[in-house]
Amino acid sequence: MAKKPELDDYRVPYFDDAKKIEKFALTNLDPGTKPLSTGAKDADRQRLAEIGARLDALQECLHAQRVQRVLLVLQGMDTSGKDGTVRAVFHEVDPLGLRIVPFKAPTPTELAHDFLWRVHSQAPAAGELTVFNRSHYEDVLVPVVLGQLDRDQRERRFRHIREFEGMLADSGTTIIKCMLHISKDEQRARLQARIDDPTKHWKFDVSDLEARKQWDQYQNAYQDMLAATSTPYAPWYIIPADSKTHRNVMVAELLLRTFEGLKLEYPPAKESLKGVKIE
Amino acid sequence: MAKKPELDDYRVPYFDDAKKIEKFALTNLDPGTKPLSTGAKDADRQRLAEIGARLDALQECLHAQRVQRVLLVLQGMDTSGKDGTVRAVFHEVDPLGLRIVPFKAPTPTELAHDFLWRVHSQAPAAGELTVFNRSHYEDVLVPVVLGQLDRDQRERRFRHIREFEGMLADSGTTIIKCMLHISKDEQRARLQARIDDPTKHWKFDVSDLEARKQWDQYQNAYQDMLAATSTPYAPWYIIPADSKTHRNVMVAELLLRTFEGLKLEYPPAKESLKGVKIE
Repeated sequence: MAKKPELDDYRVPYFDDAKKIEKFALTNLDPGTKPLSTGAKDADRQRLAEIGARLDALQECLHAQRVQRVLLVLQGMDTSGKDGTVRAVFHEVDPLGLRIVPFKAPTPTELAHDFLWRVHSQAPAAGELTVFNRSHYEDVLVPVVLGQLDRDQRERRFRHIREFEGMLADSGTTIIKCMLHISKDEQRARLQARIDDPTKHWKFDVSDLEARKQWDQYQNAYQDMLAATSTPYAPWYIIPADSKTHRNVMVAELLLRTFEGLKLEYPPAKESLKGVKIE
Repeated sequence: MAKKPELDDYRVPYFDDAKKIEKFALTNLDPGTKPLSTGAKDADRQRLAEIGARLDALQECLHAQRVQRVLLVLQGMDTSGKDGTVRAVFHEVDPLGLRIVPFKAPTPTELAHDFLWRVHSQAPAAGELTVFNRSHYEDVLVPVVLGQLDRDQRERRFRHIREFEGMLADSGTTIIKCMLHISKDEQRARLQARIDDPTKHWKFDVSDLEARKQWDQYQNAYQDMLAATSTPYAPWYIIPADSKTHRNVMVAELLLRTFEGLKLEYPPAKESLKGVKIE
């Protein structure tokens, strides 16, 4: 419990707080720091297992109640650990209550629609916990770096995202968004590991190298996107992610705090079932 | 390995083997037997954990290769343990590579289409392991017991199912189907437990009692359905399921054998990546 205030130190200031946003700089946040760590890897893993068990119980309650919805958005550079986070944080959670939605490069059909069309169709239903592995935020990062969106188009997308997420929140969806923040050095090591191990070649995409060449442009695009789309109803958190164990614990703590904030309870017992005997 | 022949003792004879089908009777299969059990619950759980770890590794390979698809269909009476099976068997499997699709009573939109429409849209893609928690088989059980389908309509649905599954198999999908077989007594105990524990009332649906009253009709409908739709490319297995531990181990063993039969291998290493150094 003592750690919880520290989570909010890593929350991106809300976009309408111009003064705070001015001070917010992704480059000042060290991806190697471990604010949520106990200092010992074993203890961190123990904590992660404890949170997993709690999340499992809370998620059952969410499912039983079928009223609220939870959406976790994961973003980050290639190799930042989105897949690994899903695997570790949700290890204890019943797969029945969890839906993981990976968003890849859009298909022609998806491109034929507005950029929110494909994500909207995957939004969580009542009682669901849904994780977006990449998301609509790709559409304000990649095309920005590639110069396919001008400033005005980008600002309009930011606004559309704030409004869309506001509508989801207003309809009973709790949204948290995590940017997994790794250093350029750590990415080099992780890409190299994929190349050095032939059984990992399938994870390697040559386009990852193109994106790596534009590291600074992507960091800038992230900075602008984070500042423009962190809101009270859909806040962004920066997760220092050079340490995988720390990354997992921090995302898990955030999710646990979110679930605890929902004040979940089992639906009231049905009076009509009291004393019923099955034949 | 010594156990494997026993799995096939619980395979429903293929529908075109008239002689064997005549002898097949669900009522002769004791739901309380535990053919796959070691005899000790701890050892069974240990075996389940081992299979889980193997399945996790094999599923990663399936995902890496992105060629084959695996579909597991789970059917069974209320409380037969479909949810519990998913939870136990897939505990070790990476949620990223797993898609659980629950089918409830059809919505008006779903009813406005043919009965295979909603299941087809959820069929596994290349590299996916998909689990149907209930399925198109509900549509040859419920309406049969309720007298909404005449004999001819039912036979046509059986044929449509065989042809549909044949097409999926021909397109690279490996299909296995498990009927979780519980006794009427065991169902009574499980329904009673849901009533006696107010935090489980949400799992209880009054319509379960209606279906229980028609237990024999449902068993007959299952018998006919199993006989008509067990095929070499989409076989049905009866899982004695009064023991939850046994049920989990048996489904896991079946799935493991299926995955091992796929001869999965990581995609070949990319020659072009050899010796590449990331800057």
